[in-house]
Amino acid sequence: MRIRVVNPNTTAAMTALIGASARAVAGPGVHVEAVTSAMGPASIESHYDEALSVPGLLAAVAEGETRGIDAYVVACFGDPGLDAARELARGPVVGIAEAAMHAAALLGRGFSVVTTLDRTIGRAWDLAARYTAPGACRGVHACEIAVLDLEADPHLADRVAARAGRALERDGSDVIVLGCAGMAGLCAAVSERLGGVPVIDGVSAATLAAQSLVTLGLRTSERSEFARPRPKQYTGGLEAFQMETLPPESANRPVSRGSRAM
Amino acid sequence: MRIRVVNPNTTAAMTALIGASARAVAGPGVHVEAVTSAMGPASIESHYDEALSVPGLLAAVAEGETRGIDAYVVACFGDPGLDAARELARGPVVGIAEAAMHAAALLGRGFSVVTTLDRTIGRAWDLAARYTAPGACRGVHACEIAVLDLEADPHLADRVAARAGRALERDGSDVIVLGCAGMAGLCAAVSERLGGVPVIDGVSAATLAAQSLVTLGLRTSERSEFARPRPKQYTGGLEAFQMETLPPESANRPVSRGSRAM
Amino acid sequence: MRIRVVNPNTTAAMTALIGASARAVAGPGVHVEAVTSAMGPASIESHYDEALSVPGLLAAVAEGETRGIDAYVVACFGDPGLDAARELARGPVVGIAEAAMHAAALLGRGFSVVTTLDRTIGRAWDLAARYTAPGACRGVHACEIAVLDLEADPHLADRVAARAGRALERDGSDVIVLGCAGMAGLCAAVSERLGGVPVIDGVSAATLAAQSLVTLGLRTSERSEFARPRPKQYTGGLEAFQMETLPPESANRPVSRGSRAM
Amino acid sequence: MRIRVVNPNTTAAMTALIGASARAVAGPGVHVEAVTSAMGPASIESHYDEALSVPGLLAAVAEGETRGIDAYVVACFGDPGLDAARELARGPVVGIAEAAMHAAALLGRGFSVVTTLDRTIGRAWDLAARYTAPGACRGVHACEIAVLDLEADPHLADRVAARAGRALERDGSDVIVLGCAGMAGLCAAVSERLGGVPVIDGVSAATLAAQSLVTLGLRTSERSEFARPRPKQYTGGLEAFQMETLPPESANRPVSRGSRAM
Amino acid sequence: MRIRVVNPNTTAAMTALIGASARAVAGPGVHVEAVTSAMGPASIESHYDEALSVPGLLAAVAEGETRGIDAYVVACFGDPGLDAARELARGPVVGIAEAAMHAAALLGRGFSVVTTLDRTIGRAWDLAARYTAPGACRGVHACEIAVLDLEADPHLADRVAARAGRALERDGSDVIVLGCAGMAGLCAAVSERLGGVPVIDGVSAATLAAQSLVTLGLRTSERSEFARPRPKQYTGGLEAFQMETLPPESANRPVSRGSRAM
Amino acid sequence: MRIRVVNPNTTAAMTALIGASARAVAGPGVHVEAVTSAMGPASIESHYDEALSVPGLLAAVAEGETRGIDAYVVACFGDPGLDAARELARGPVVGIAEAAMHAAALLGRGFSVVTTLDRTIGRAWDLAARYTAPGACRGVHACEIAVLDLEADPHLADRVAARAGRALERDGSDVIVLGCAGMAGLCAAVSERLGGVPVIDGVSAATLAAQSLVTLGLRTSERSEFARPRPKQYTGGLEAFQMETLPPESANRPVSRGSRAM
Repeated sequence: MRIRVVNPNTTAAMTALIGASARAVAGPGVHVEAVTSAMGPASIESHYDEALSVPGLLAAVAEGETRGIDAYVVACFGDPGLDAARELARGPVVGIAEAAMHAAALLGRGFSVVTTLDRTIGRAWDLAARYTAPGACRGVHACEIAVLDLEADPHLADRVAARAGRALERDGSDVIVLGCAGMAGLCAAVSERLGGVPVIDGVSAATLAAQSLVTLGLRTSERSEFARPRPKQYTGGLEAFQMETLPPESANRPVSRGSRAM
Repeated sequence: MRIRVVNPNTTAAMTALIGASARAVAGPGVHVEAVTSAMGPASIESHYDEALSVPGLLAAVAEGETRGIDAYVVACFGDPGLDAARELARGPVVGIAEAAMHAAALLGRGFSVVTTLDRTIGRAWDLAARYTAPGACRGVHACEIAVLDLEADPHLADRVAARAGRALERDGSDVIVLGCAGMAGLCAAVSERLGGVPVIDGVSAATLAAQSLVTLGLRTSERSEFARPRPKQYTGGLEAFQMETLPPESANRPVSRGSRAM
Repeated sequence: MRIRVVNPNTTAAMTALIGASARAVAGPGVHVEAVTSAMGPASIESHYDEALSVPGLLAAVAEGETRGIDAYVVACFGDPGLDAARELARGPVVGIAEAAMHAAALLGRGFSVVTTLDRTIGRAWDLAARYTAPGACRGVHACEIAVLDLEADPHLADRVAARAGRALERDGSDVIVLGCAGMAGLCAAVSERLGGVPVIDGVSAATLAAQSLVTLGLRTSERSEFARPRPKQYTGGLEAFQMETLPPESANRPVSRGSRAM
Repeated sequence: MRIRVVNPNTTAAMTALIGASARAVAGPGVHVEAVTSAMGPASIESHYDEALSVPGLLAAVAEGETRGIDAYVVACFGDPGLDAARELARGPVVGIAEAAMHAAALLGRGFSVVTTLDRTIGRAWDLAARYTAPGACRGVHACEIAVLDLEADPHLADRVAARAGRALERDGSDVIVLGCAGMAGLCAAVSERLGGVPVIDGVSAATLAAQSLVTLGLRTSERSEFARPRPKQYTGGLEAFQMETLPPESANRPVSRGSRAM
Repeated sequence: MRIRVVNPNTTAAMTALIGASARAVAGPGVHVEAVTSAMGPASIESHYDEALSVPGLLAAVAEGETRGIDAYVVACFGDPGLDAARELARGPVVGIAEAAMHAAALLGRGFSVVTTLDRTIGRAWDLAARYTAPGACRGVHACEIAVLDLEADPHLADRVAARAGRALERDGSDVIVLGCAGMAGLCAAVSERLGGVPVIDGVSAATLAAQSLVTLGLRTSERSEFARPRPKQYTGGLEAFQMETLPPESANRPVSRGSRAM
Repeated sequence: MRIRVVNPNTTAAMTALIGASARAVAGPGVHVEAVTSAMGPASIESHYDEALSVPGLLAAVAEGETRGIDAYVVACFGDPGLDAARELARGPVVGIAEAAMHAAALLGRGFSVVTTLDRTIGRAWDLAARYTAPGACRGVHACEIAVLDLEADPHLADRVAARAGRALERDGSDVIVLGCAGMAGLCAAVSERLGGVPVIDGVSAATLAAQSLVTLGLRTSERSEFARPRPKQYTGGLEAFQMETLPPESANRPVSRGSRAM
């Protein structure tokens, strides 16, 4: 089984960290390949950065499709481009926020997210609203460390654990979710400082979620919304993203009814 | 006042339609300029198309910022790139789904959306969940017409009205929202066929919402989330999107507390 | 275009303030007429006051219908009688809480309301639940100033700004909504004290929302719920509110199906 | 114990029906007095009717306060003026929609409401959203019978049962709530036609809820929102509603903090 | 009328307290019998305790069915086994959390629960989500007193009132719900210390709710979900719980459609 | 790694099916042991059955704790006793409904559940509300086959696929969740009949979720709610469930604050 873990920013040092985190948990016979986006921002800390990381992510997925990749992990806590990647890939695609929040729900009553910059809090809430039952996410808290400063901070585990500890108290939560792929190596150290409270890293959680889906023989539904995009003209420098005409076997995909009332 | 209405797809004929719809309602002294995205897909009918329309949209906003634009309208019903554009623009940015759904809420108990392809239904529900109170959006229904086929369909108003009429019955709704910028010219014809039920076009609604915000002297909050993105390196063909260092006056922007419990 | 802004309390001084706020933003060719309710309480600070302000509001709308009014604004932050007024008026009717909350949603991630007395907080939450997506309204906070004391308070902007500043911190919000029509003149002063955070006055926002709906050719749906009330006997001093028999052209209004499952 | 059941419309025949329904269930020693509103509409079938029924309801409560009434029932399924009445009365006030929906929640998984006219469906949903957990109310269905025609319809139980039977099927519900005080006598006949499915009349349910609250020694909280309204000038024909100055013992009522974040 | 109040723990002293609370409010002619569970934990303070209290509760209900009991109260604030008991009993079954939360909703804008141990907070929130509209329950707060220590605490009312007072402030609530059957005798003392804020004991509230349902002639719907369980083999020490073959008259119970879309 | 999959009913044939489904996906080095509950009902088709299956489930977990089990799967779609089992086990515990719904959320926009009997629909909705974001579960549909008849039905895949196909159409869903452990072997056959739509069996999904959590080094949070139950007296035949005194190392577990406002 081949799982491609895509770092949607262009910083190779982060990709190395992410890859190590994924490989540490992947099962025997699972080949994890961590790739760095070839285009876009050096780190993702705003809606602007996130939007502009998506072309690079999609290119990495499209390239993966030519190499027999079985599943993908989107390794940024904003889960950028997840829906689009699902349209593109034959196998499943898992976001790290999604996988981390699912894991948190299996381990406690409610979780708190500890993230980097204050300005990313809104996105984390958006994702929690999409992925979890109301009330599962109890709070999102920023450490006010820029993504690219994480690696160099000698007291990072202490700072994250301090923020997480206050979050547990304030939110009445019982699980911590690390809100940045760049925190991937911190689980054990932070959990220890919190007296054993579960601390979840999305990169490893998503890697195992992707591996599990492939093992189960499951892939994204092609019924309607996530079917492969219709081919059309792309211009202005994005010509490379133009999809080719759908292969004939897709012509008879199931089509749903075309309406849904709530 | 200058309002730039951005068509995030690359089809100039749709831009003409959109511009006409915006200009038809803009107030005296309001200059509407409709621009076509310079890069990306010819139409937006999937998450993939939508994600790849965002760079072109952001380029159009960035360019507008050099020309004294007061407000922007994102003229695609998926409201692509709206959050990112808000970080970039000094003035307000309004999405057409957002404006149409707000208008619908002022006119009745619940609305139905009539859109193009079945595969866009999920996105419309996502936006309704973000913009409206639960229960306001009663249903989303597809006509199964591709975006670029809208213009050529001689029976378009009839088809849309037929779908809308069934939606009103099925959903128990009392307002119709047109779910594509390419349906901008249809309001009167569809409303007439429905016996006067309000039919809302997001392009004209968003133009007036943007105009109103400028008149009120209001712009996107710069407190935390929508503050201007931090400058950083952009590579791989997206160098043009690299933000310059923040001007000094932004240094003392208010910063919020860094946490929020639900 | 003629927009009637109804102050549903009987205090003419507040009507003058409200009218000035509305006229300051209305477009060229829009005639704003601010009217004071002819019956009911001098200010609205309880469910009791609010309920008893509605007959005066409806009388002002009914009278407006005989004078060719195109749209109405209900200028009290409790939006009293809004649904009933919509049944009565041919043109659109907009409440100031509704318009302010919609505007806030276009400008940031979440807003806080700053209002007069503690006892009105519940009503503001009810309206937020009706008008906005869950999570948009982050908090409602009282200054503990009675409505009729607002005008005389020499430090009003300071007091409101202080309360708003604490609300932004506590709620993690990024926009302020002023929760009383009597605060209409304060936007600029409060925003300035808050370092530029958007501050929204519902009176001016609702005036432009009403103007926009008229420009768009839109009015309240007459399909079922908001159709003109059936005529019937009114007695006991409220005879003046008895509707006359429906004009013949209303006989063939569309009627919906009569059921809705969630 | 004295319970006053207020019919907020002015039709005495309905009051007789309502009173009989309440007396049939009231406990020994409970005096039920059914009163007809002295002012307003002959029946309540729109937001307009409902708004204009509130002054009469409040007058009936205010008069009851001078006669030692222990609790009140608002006997119209729209629960008009409930919040205002709670501010006015010393004892508890219960609406019939509220009590019926609570009873339904104790008896099954989900209920359907069967009401009179299609145009009242929206109000029933509003009340369900306020009183019940999401999903408890499964559907609201109209029989298209005007309120004042209910009494004369010789086949009323059959019509209501037929509508209810379809509602049970369509909604997957297991309890029926009768959506009009004028249906008070129908429970047994409709339940029998439905093979024993519980059918709830709000008038009798609310009478027992009010009786229970008095027995428990409970009354509306005076903490902040539902405290007695502040006295102020009422004019224009509503002078009778002017509250007198608060009695001194109310001066030291508890006051809450003045803010609430969600 | 015979109402059986089941204490699902095995501590007879608590049953005595519960029985006294129920009898103090039951109407003339209502026979309240308080029974202690014959099997299970001495107190219920965890999901584990709660799960293992259910067999004893169900045995008490099954036995009651042989003695003509008209209604049951489940007298533990976790409402253990409520759905199962409803399948078993002919008459209505009411949980004390359910009844207390309904009563609270009739008396104020939002309530706070004051309970025993911190670890029971999650269950109280689950029940609030099931029984009440979103926002009705504002907070759940623990006194950190074990259930069986309640009786012996000479300062119990003071401790509960102190916790409740802080809850009212923090939550912006206006009603207190006591979150344990073992607090049944405290209402008056706690309310007095809180200056008259309503304080609700679920045991007495549920007794009157059950009495009211019997008076109304209402019982749990047998349509589908709460129909009597299908008989089947029970083994391993639980043979006594094996249901006998359904009596013939149940053969023609109404059956619902077998599907429900949201 | 040792994973114990507990069949909470007493039918060994179903345990064999469940065990095979779990073993088919478990990773190398993972020992799956499927155990049949030693006490309780032969199948679980009601709240009554479910409640009485919990003691047997907890006994199987308690016994597993003496044998070094690393994680547990609760193999009944009602997820009976899940919270209680989490208090008891050192390692993670995963329910099959929980795991199936999480997997479904990774693969499409919305799922439909196909289950056995109509009367279990309510429980499935309860679980969906607890595990997933609003709108993820689009419908729950019964095949009206008793659990113990599943195995013998020669046309089972056809019947389930037919029901699933109608569900996809009616609900506008794109993924199917099989709503009974007894359907564990059907995924491939049903998916094939549905043209490739993903079909999820909770047993295999939960096995991999449990395996993943163990691999990640994660276990249920012991902070407050899911801490090991306090030891206390159990009587009346359930003495075996009495917990022993907590070992000393648990004395200094972290304790949360004791309150949470929403």
